Amino acid sequence: MIIVMRPGAPEADIARIQKLLAARGLGAHISIGESLTIIGVVGDKSRLDTEQLGLLPGVEKLVPIMEPYKLASLTFHPGRTSFTIRGVEFGGHELVQIAGPCAVESEEQLEITAAAVARAGARVLRGGAYKPRTSPYSFQGLEREGLRLLREAADRHGLLVISEITSEVDLEEAAEYVDIVQIGARNSQNFRLLSAVGRSGLPVLLKRGFAESIDELLSSTEYILSEGNYRLILCERGIRTFETATRSTLDLSAVPVLREKTHLPVFVDPSHAAGKASLVAPLARAAVAAGADGLIIEVHPNPPQARSDAAQQLTPAQYADLAAELARIAAVMGRGPEPA
Amino acid sequence: MIIVMRPGAPEADIARIQKLLAARGLGAHISIGESLTIIGVVGDKSRLDTEQLGLLPGVEKLVPIMEPYKLASLTFHPGRTSFTIRGVEFGGHELVQIAGPCAVESEEQLEITAAAVARAGARVLRGGAYKPRTSPYSFQGLEREGLRLLREAADRHGLLVISEITSEVDLEEAAEYVDIVQIGARNSQNFRLLSAVGRSGLPVLLKRGFAESIDELLSSTEYILSEGNYRLILCERGIRTFETATRSTLDLSAVPVLREKTHLPVFVDPSHAAGKASLVAPLARAAVAAGADGLIIEVHPNPPQARSDAAQQLTPAQYADLAAELARIAAVMGRGPEPA
Amino acid sequence: MIIVMRPGAPEADIARIQKLLAARGLGAHISIGESLTIIGVVGDKSRLDTEQLGLLPGVEKLVPIMEPYKLASLTFHPGRTSFTIRGVEFGGHELVQIAGPCAVESEEQLEITAAAVARAGARVLRGGAYKPRTSPYSFQGLEREGLRLLREAADRHGLLVISEITSEVDLEEAAEYVDIVQIGARNSQNFRLLSAVGRSGLPVLLKRGFAESIDELLSSTEYILSEGNYRLILCERGIRTFETATRSTLDLSAVPVLREKTHLPVFVDPSHAAGKASLVAPLARAAVAAGADGLIIEVHPNPPQARSDAAQQLTPAQYADLAAELARIAAVMGRGPEPA
Amino acid sequence: MIIVMRPGAPEADIARIQKLLAARGLGAHISIGESLTIIGVVGDKSRLDTEQLGLLPGVEKLVPIMEPYKLASLTFHPGRTSFTIRGVEFGGHELVQIAGPCAVESEEQLEITAAAVARAGARVLRGGAYKPRTSPYSFQGLEREGLRLLREAADRHGLLVISEITSEVDLEEAAEYVDIVQIGARNSQNFRLLSAVGRSGLPVLLKRGFAESIDELLSSTEYILSEGNYRLILCERGIRTFETATRSTLDLSAVPVLREKTHLPVFVDPSHAAGKASLVAPLARAAVAAGADGLIIEVHPNPPQARSDAAQQLTPAQYADLAAELARIAAVMGRGPEPA
Repeated sequence: MIIVMRPGAPEADIARIQKLLAARGLGAHISIGESLTIIGVVGDKSRLDTEQLGLLPGVEKLVPIMEPYKLASLTFHPGRTSFTIRGVEFGGHELVQIAGPCAVESEEQLEITAAAVARAGARVLRGGAYKPRTSPYSFQGLEREGLRLLREAADRHGLLVISEITSEVDLEEAAEYVDIVQIGARNSQNFRLLSAVGRSGLPVLLKRGFAESIDELLSSTEYILSEGNYRLILCERGIRTFETATRSTLDLSAVPVLREKTHLPVFVDPSHAAGKASLVAPLARAAVAAGADGLIIEVHPNPPQARSDAAQQLTPAQYADLAAELARIAAVMGRGPEPA
Repeated sequence: MIIVMRPGAPEADIARIQKLLAARGLGAHISIGESLTIIGVVGDKSRLDTEQLGLLPGVEKLVPIMEPYKLASLTFHPGRTSFTIRGVEFGGHELVQIAGPCAVESEEQLEITAAAVARAGARVLRGGAYKPRTSPYSFQGLEREGLRLLREAADRHGLLVISEITSEVDLEEAAEYVDIVQIGARNSQNFRLLSAVGRSGLPVLLKRGFAESIDELLSSTEYILSEGNYRLILCERGIRTFETATRSTLDLSAVPVLREKTHLPVFVDPSHAAGKASLVAPLARAAVAAGADGLIIEVHPNPPQARSDAAQQLTPAQYADLAAELARIAAVMGRGPEPA
Repeated sequence: MIIVMRPGAPEADIARIQKLLAARGLGAHISIGESLTIIGVVGDKSRLDTEQLGLLPGVEKLVPIMEPYKLASLTFHPGRTSFTIRGVEFGGHELVQIAGPCAVESEEQLEITAAAVARAGARVLRGGAYKPRTSPYSFQGLEREGLRLLREAADRHGLLVISEITSEVDLEEAAEYVDIVQIGARNSQNFRLLSAVGRSGLPVLLKRGFAESIDELLSSTEYILSEGNYRLILCERGIRTFETATRSTLDLSAVPVLREKTHLPVFVDPSHAAGKASLVAPLARAAVAAGADGLIIEVHPNPPQARSDAAQQLTPAQYADLAAELARIAAVMGRGPEPA
Repeated sequence: MIIVMRPGAPEADIARIQKLLAARGLGAHISIGESLTIIGVVGDKSRLDTEQLGLLPGVEKLVPIMEPYKLASLTFHPGRTSFTIRGVEFGGHELVQIAGPCAVESEEQLEITAAAVARAGARVLRGGAYKPRTSPYSFQGLEREGLRLLREAADRHGLLVISEITSEVDLEEAAEYVDIVQIGARNSQNFRLLSAVGRSGLPVLLKRGFAESIDELLSSTEYILSEGNYRLILCERGIRTFETATRSTLDLSAVPVLREKTHLPVFVDPSHAAGKASLVAPLARAAVAAGADGLIIEVHPNPPQARSDAAQQLTPAQYADLAAELARIAAVMGRGPEPA
């Protein structure tokens, strides 16, 4: 933390700040420049209320030096976090694929999808049971029944289960069925939900919000990590920009940036970012080439009949082709699985 | 809804669509142009799954003609909605001011603030009891105790109470104390919360999300309005852009745009948008000049000691000066209250 | 400038930096913290290549303390800049209105417009002679003939002339006719043009670019100011965001922010930001209430017949009504002209 | 083009529009719906001034059906455009690499760079001679002397030359030295420059502007293509968003979107988007995996000594490693060059 004083701030202002810092056990290194005086704060800044500091007489502005997050930071936790859930390693050597329909619709839909994506190499089955839809008149999900169908289909094909929850009220119910809880973009700063999921100890996939910077995403993770829950996967899924050719703008720079800033595994969701099936394959390939640890892709046995997000879901055949390409790019990146 | 066919789409594709529309009781007006054929859909489009339609053979794209919301639309509900809560009219002749601290901290803090803002002409006392903070290590609010203090201070000074809730779990508790429930920007698309608040029948102030378009904000309102709850105030509080000189970019165009699109009252929160006290007065004045029905402004007896958002809160004296200016601009706009 | 060292950077790295700074006559204040060492650079940083510095071994990042601009800064030039062109003061007591058609079309069009806007209180006539259109098939302007017509109409009604140029090639021609040269949003970082206009000594109105931050706008002004040309007006005209209800998002916060950062006059163009005539009046009022020194508004005798920007131009009657409202808000702000 | 009428628009309004369309030789297909009447316009819309149409009585809004560009569109020019310049094919089978320093600094700098990038497989040497810098105090380029040095170094190593121009004033000079003219992001809507370059007949690489949508980029190309100049390469280089971890947000979705909309070759510049050398390799790999036809990458023999953009330039050794990786990903994409 650097305190920049206003030009011409009197010595009394500087002395007041030194005293305040000393009272909190912090040191002050003062640099008197030609036009500005700055004060470097030394010590544990968590003892300091920085907004108050910024309002003291003579203070021009505060310049933070450290990131606003700690537990997620590579500085404090060097090396990469990986963890294994029922035999599937996240953040490890292998590119992990999550695939499945946008929404759980029926047992038959799930059976066809689970069989197809397992055969193509996916390790986790996705499917929405509680759907956050922009219109209250749209299909809202099968809830508990959806979770049960998802679990059964996954079990038949040796897949893990991931599903989104949108309220802490659903957490207990979901915990009976899922291996990984998904927090969607609309809830990325629903801190009540993040804390509840953190306390649950369940593995979590946290999507970046539409308007959330990378640093804010990492700050949000503290709500989960500070509960001792380190089985956390981050997921880039596109941010809101002025461009309307895609539903969101997939920020693939976030993949290498996150890998420089945090030890947590980084996944990418090309389906929701693109909003259009024909863009999913190029973006999925690009995500792997950018260094993603895994992907989450929407697959539906009959997209035109899908009850939500029809436009962006791949058919099982399209997904199988894509998975083969992804394996070849993963190999260039020195990752498994080995191409068939 | 207009269906644009691909150039050279065979007649069979067009016939298939006509048949599908007819099966749902919808008409089709076909225009065969030099390079494109388009089909105008006539009738109640709620019978139609548009994403499925977009995937039919020969379809290039769908062009929506109507807004994606209905109950909030001025087209379906001409005139302006106004409603009165304990003698205060929202959306009526008078510019309504909501003021108070970011977070409820103590009885003394509230007493000083409530007295000051009531004297300056505010009609509603604000104060956060459940705070959504970007860091889990920041002050998270006094919860029920905060609501009780807020209610008491408001009652002593003839003010209404507004406070934010961040989970449907808190709704019952909040309902005992508040006159208006606030939904914050981070929960603007927390549809579970919107539905719950809609069902509660409590008056609601709904803030626009950081990455929410005006049309999406109006779509979100359907979650509340479709429950029969029409005591709803919309609030512009800034959107996320590339500009970093302010915390958010206050989109004052949203005020006249909303007034052209919806019958609901429109408020503006200059404090959170600016994130800096010195910008609050110019933006508050501008909001009134743009046609806002009310304002929500942060006021704290001693901003440098505030436990959250210290940088953006006005002192009671600054607020009194601003309120006087606002009354003069309101008068130019043909609104009350009359300048003192 | 603060240099933040990587955690655990060896002393040799710090010594190398001290030596480099000393070689350029700069001092170094070193603060050794618990987890980080930082170096405050003291002296004239213009002697330093900061990008090179950032690449030295052991350097984590550089934190700038000062703004990237100097001549435009209120820090280096306290007080406000105002200047008078043929009797009209810019940046002074009076709210200055610039009005006129998007494009110069004919003598008759200009005569009607100039007469009307002069009567309503405008002091400057605008009109485009070289039009930057997004399509090469659109009307591109009357060029020299347009400037001549503009000058004649303005002279008949005692108005100044402002017109946009889009290439330094046109500067000499324009200088014969205009009182103020306008640089549009698309050329806000056309540094060749900025330098040429700076050297010309002509008064300039510089619009903010669609994707230009306030600090970047102020940096761009150095191209003009460093040529000794201080008759410079800044103009907010909307930035590009995800919102599509308006053509651009008018960033009215820029008005008070610019007034805190720079001494230069600040104008607002509500017409281009909104792109729709019905939004111009609310945004123009808001701009004045936010503290703008002037406005630039599009007025056309018959908007449906306009050859460009038909949708956003006001009629003379609409403009006269607006001008009367603006005078009343200007009065609240303590500015002239006095309301009629 | 669809004309949507206001609810309840009288028949006279509809008749007036029919008459106006008929006068311009256009047909009108009228669909009278339950709540809205719409008019489909049939025929050559270039005869129509759409802004005027939008202002006619009874018109609610106009809905465009076709893209605002024609010559660049895949609809009007099916298949892909490729062209060969001195033996190098752009838009063909081979992934084309452009590499070289941000700015031309010296003969020695260029000789080292040209030798290294040619050895690694690059086909075109880049280097700035006219630099658009945000500060007038930064190095502005060697101009003609820079172009001469660039040409000589390229010739010694069998490379083509690309260099940016920022004003039509420089075009003649540049034409003596370069094989491809580059238009940078800041000039992407400098239509005067685009027209001049179009008329010159020189091959062009046009970068997308910071705030330019994909459709607007394609519209801008009409300024070049309509002059009969079809040797045009588009280049994605990042757009402006709220994220600050990278200088711009590289929009890799633009690659597949452009390939669906236009026949022109699509390149990617990861260096300027990232602004940081460590991000260049992941983004370059991702661009190839997304389907880019080529890349433009900054390489400097000694980045810490570079006179501009020091932070983002690769060393020759880093570039050689990257080029080898890129060749392996190109092979997965079915493109040359074959991996060594």
